[in-house]
Amino acid sequence: MIVDAGEDPRPPRQTAASDAHLEETRRLGERVYEGALLDVRRDTVTLPDGGTAIREYIVHPGAVLIVPVLPDGTLVVERQHRYPLNRVFVEFPAGKLDPGESPLVTAQRELREEVGYAASAWTRLGVIHPVVSYSTEAIELYVAEGLTHIGRALDDGEFLDVVAMSADALLAALDRGEITDAKTVAALLMYMRRMRP
Amino acid sequence: MIVDAGEDPRPPRQTAASDAHLEETRRLGERVYEGALLDVRRDTVTLPDGGTAIREYIVHPGAVLIVPVLPDGTLVVERQHRYPLNRVFVEFPAGKLDPGESPLVTAQRELREEVGYAASAWTRLGVIHPVVSYSTEAIELYVAEGLTHIGRALDDGEFLDVVAMSADALLAALDRGEITDAKTVAALLMYMRRMRP
Repeated sequence: MIVDAGEDPRPPRQTAASDAHLEETRRLGERVYEGALLDVRRDTVTLPDGGTAIREYIVHPGAVLIVPVLPDGTLVVERQHRYPLNRVFVEFPAGKLDPGESPLVTAQRELREEVGYAASAWTRLGVIHPVVSYSTEAIELYVAEGLTHIGRALDDGEFLDVVAMSADALLAALDRGEITDAKTVAALLMYMRRMRP
Repeated sequence: MIVDAGEDPRPPRQTAASDAHLEETRRLGERVYEGALLDVRRDTVTLPDGGTAIREYIVHPGAVLIVPVLPDGTLVVERQHRYPLNRVFVEFPAGKLDPGESPLVTAQRELREEVGYAASAWTRLGVIHPVVSYSTEAIELYVAEGLTHIGRALDDGEFLDVVAMSADALLAALDRGEITDAKTVAALLMYMRRMRP
């Protein structure tokens, strides 16, 4: 019984008929917090057995990550303080889509703004979903090659160091537990698998 | 100038002196939403250049992921509908820490509850942070071997299929873009690197 479901902020349904026994169906939804960054929803759903449950989640515009490859094969990473975890992380450049922006254009913009490069060759590596349980976020992964340094232009309030590291040095840092950002771990290992098998 | 910062819900500070030029410092914090699942915070921070910014994030109790290895080398995964993304995902078993629970005990509990196995050997694979920009969540990764089937006991409102797949079949699914859950991508590739080099 749908009373008033409002607009569904989730991606379009992608459930095969054979998965009907797993699917949760939206009945009602409300926005419980809208901040500068976070858009928080609370939906009432019908479970596969007909029961009712509450699902809370973040509505996210989508993001991109770039693996920038310098002519000598080293990769460009950032060192950035991440406030929620109270520490500095080694990460590939990444950023959110602006309204109406395509992922590739976002990737080109972020590569320029955050680390100061333009690239002549772009390869899509895939997509990952960082938090399937409480966010709609999807991150498109790209490899950028043929880099030209043009100088960066950080957003206001953005502070980060740019570092070039060999793939081996990044893998050694991963093995030592020094790279833990999930998107960076996934992208580094997908890059090694796909582009340097 | 700290007016009233309240209790800091973030992990303890881990910033080297050499990273002071990157660090954001907490000044004030408030809880803006507390739901059944999500605890949403809004903090006022001082930027490295003395400016002020707002940081919004989820406070999370931490989670675990298990790579369960059957005696024939196949891996146990789940197929689960994830409401925020409106589709079914292939994922390794995972779950949140209960209050006061250690990650290994959570992993043993989730392996039993979600997929129905006990394990005789546990190896820690590492830790990942799924969303450094807006959650305190950390996921401890384990490999579970020496499995004995004891039957599962799902939580109320939890619906998922359990499937055994070879590592090669999982890697092929990853290459086809059919595995996109970031924790599962990272764990699968870290497992291949560490345990099946």
